[in-house]
Amino acid sequence: MAVYTHLSADKMESLIAAYDVGNLRSAKGIAEGVSNSNWLIETDSGRFILTMYERRIELDDLPYFLGLLDHLSERGCPVPRTIHDRDGAAFRLMDGKAVALIEFLPGISVTTPSEAQARNVGQELAGIHTASADYAPTRANDLRPGDWADLFAQCSDSALEAIDPALPGLIARNLPAIQANWPQNLPLATIHADLFPDNVLILGDEVCGLIDFYFACTDFAAYDLAVTHTAWSFSDDGREYRAEIGNALVQGYVQSRPLSAQEVAALPLLARGAALRFMATRAFDWIDTPDTALVKRKDPMDFARRLQFYTDHGDDVFRAGQQG
Amino acid sequence: MAVYTHLSADKMESLIAAYDVGNLRSAKGIAEGVSNSNWLIETDSGRFILTMYERRIELDDLPYFLGLLDHLSERGCPVPRTIHDRDGAAFRLMDGKAVALIEFLPGISVTTPSEAQARNVGQELAGIHTASADYAPTRANDLRPGDWADLFAQCSDSALEAIDPALPGLIARNLPAIQANWPQNLPLATIHADLFPDNVLILGDEVCGLIDFYFACTDFAAYDLAVTHTAWSFSDDGREYRAEIGNALVQGYVQSRPLSAQEVAALPLLARGAALRFMATRAFDWIDTPDTALVKRKDPMDFARRLQFYTDHGDDVFRAGQQG
Repeated sequence: MAVYTHLSADKMESLIAAYDVGNLRSAKGIAEGVSNSNWLIETDSGRFILTMYERRIELDDLPYFLGLLDHLSERGCPVPRTIHDRDGAAFRLMDGKAVALIEFLPGISVTTPSEAQARNVGQELAGIHTASADYAPTRANDLRPGDWADLFAQCSDSALEAIDPALPGLIARNLPAIQANWPQNLPLATIHADLFPDNVLILGDEVCGLIDFYFACTDFAAYDLAVTHTAWSFSDDGREYRAEIGNALVQGYVQSRPLSAQEVAALPLLARGAALRFMATRAFDWIDTPDTALVKRKDPMDFARRLQFYTDHGDDVFRAGQQG
Repeated sequence: MAVYTHLSADKMESLIAAYDVGNLRSAKGIAEGVSNSNWLIETDSGRFILTMYERRIELDDLPYFLGLLDHLSERGCPVPRTIHDRDGAAFRLMDGKAVALIEFLPGISVTTPSEAQARNVGQELAGIHTASADYAPTRANDLRPGDWADLFAQCSDSALEAIDPALPGLIARNLPAIQANWPQNLPLATIHADLFPDNVLILGDEVCGLIDFYFACTDFAAYDLAVTHTAWSFSDDGREYRAEIGNALVQGYVQSRPLSAQEVAALPLLARGAALRFMATRAFDWIDTPDTALVKRKDPMDFARRLQFYTDHGDDVFRAGQQG
């Protein structure tokens, strides 16, 4: 949530001159992106987001992410297209860091979605799964069940207990079963894998933008629906399940892309997995991040509560959601 | 340099609805302002900066600051006007904090100004001194020589020595003399008092915006020129004086507002004072701020070097600058 790198006016202007977008008129560092620096740029020809990739993102993956934006926006998905430079390149290197210029999309991130908004998010999520069917590049998901296990293995029981005494037991009761029963053969898609409300721009009920595709990968389409369900259907702390939101999201999804019987049957387990995936990264980051650090730590227990909820009520939740 | 407060989409929308600016279309937290939270807002009718006053600024002073923006912009100064709400108020309260909606101005902050840019900044600085002559409200400068002395008095010699062994001696050699000789009767104006390059928006050579008037006060016009000289005419670390920039700044100023003989004579001392003023706040903040804190500390020695430069060369510098 910060601008990590200072870019001088001279550097910014010479960078923008590499694109056919007119002269630079304004550049404001914006407080978005956990591992990127971002600027809201205005030129003679419009507004753009300039992103500098600071860490976490492998340079080798950038063509996949940026090509996906172009592929989806060409097919009418509400996704920002990449602006290519005068030589046709989707990204450039500056001071050894990759930078990309990306279309600015209007819209704001809702904190308490309405049913209509959740339904439209479900539809647009199905839309990217459908529209990416002919996106040839693939990328392995590096946060699958075995990776969650690796992350938890790097957290000592005492450190996990310090977060919450119930945490090690919850992991022990769920992780092996989820890993053992994880589906093998559900339909694959290019998935967003992190479609939290922060990553959706909305005006009224209309979804204007799905952004921040830097976890995108090839994995089960239904898992992406489970991740989005986990991200949208609860109070932040996971204590309150908002059935009408969860149902609207699934209904919107299946209106655009019907789920197979196997996918429906898998959803409760996929949702437990989705909750466990965010528990794992949050627990790891919590233990790895000093509490005096710049970055505000996110509480793994918010997702521990979701995991418990799905374990207790998952079958009912997704049976209800099917009634499209 | 941060957004301190999270504003939900609901709150943001209801806030914007209090103004006659159309519907909210986008809101991005921007990484500007040391003691405020700022958002770049887009509505149906244009772009705006929304500022939430987090600390340091006394609520009682807000009508002075915001009224000054309106006064100056009405008189053609490149200053953002305040957008008043439907009831005519220049600021509103939200969750106990004051918020104001301010015109967005294009332009970028230069890091290495050209002579033409410096000349135009000098002209615009003179312009606000002239245009504010009929701005009736006044505000005492709370960072005058006695206040610098108070700030240094709160820093122990050992803490100052830890910053740089030369610092206590430099203060002892300069502060009493500057305090004792500080002018009493120079022409007053409403001054910006903090016109660093960060606070000036420029396109090409044109000054599009003077911003961040939250140190504005009633004080000597020539002191504001000295502050601006200190802010623009050196490398960041104060080791290099850029004579052509300093001269262009003063020349631009006197083209718009000629200096009296007393003002010219006072400039070397005022410039030493300006350097000492930033030394004082930086030294205080340095000692007061843990080096692990969110805010990057600014080195007081950058201005200690400027102070030494003005002490050694101030007479020559401002004699040269007068040759408009």
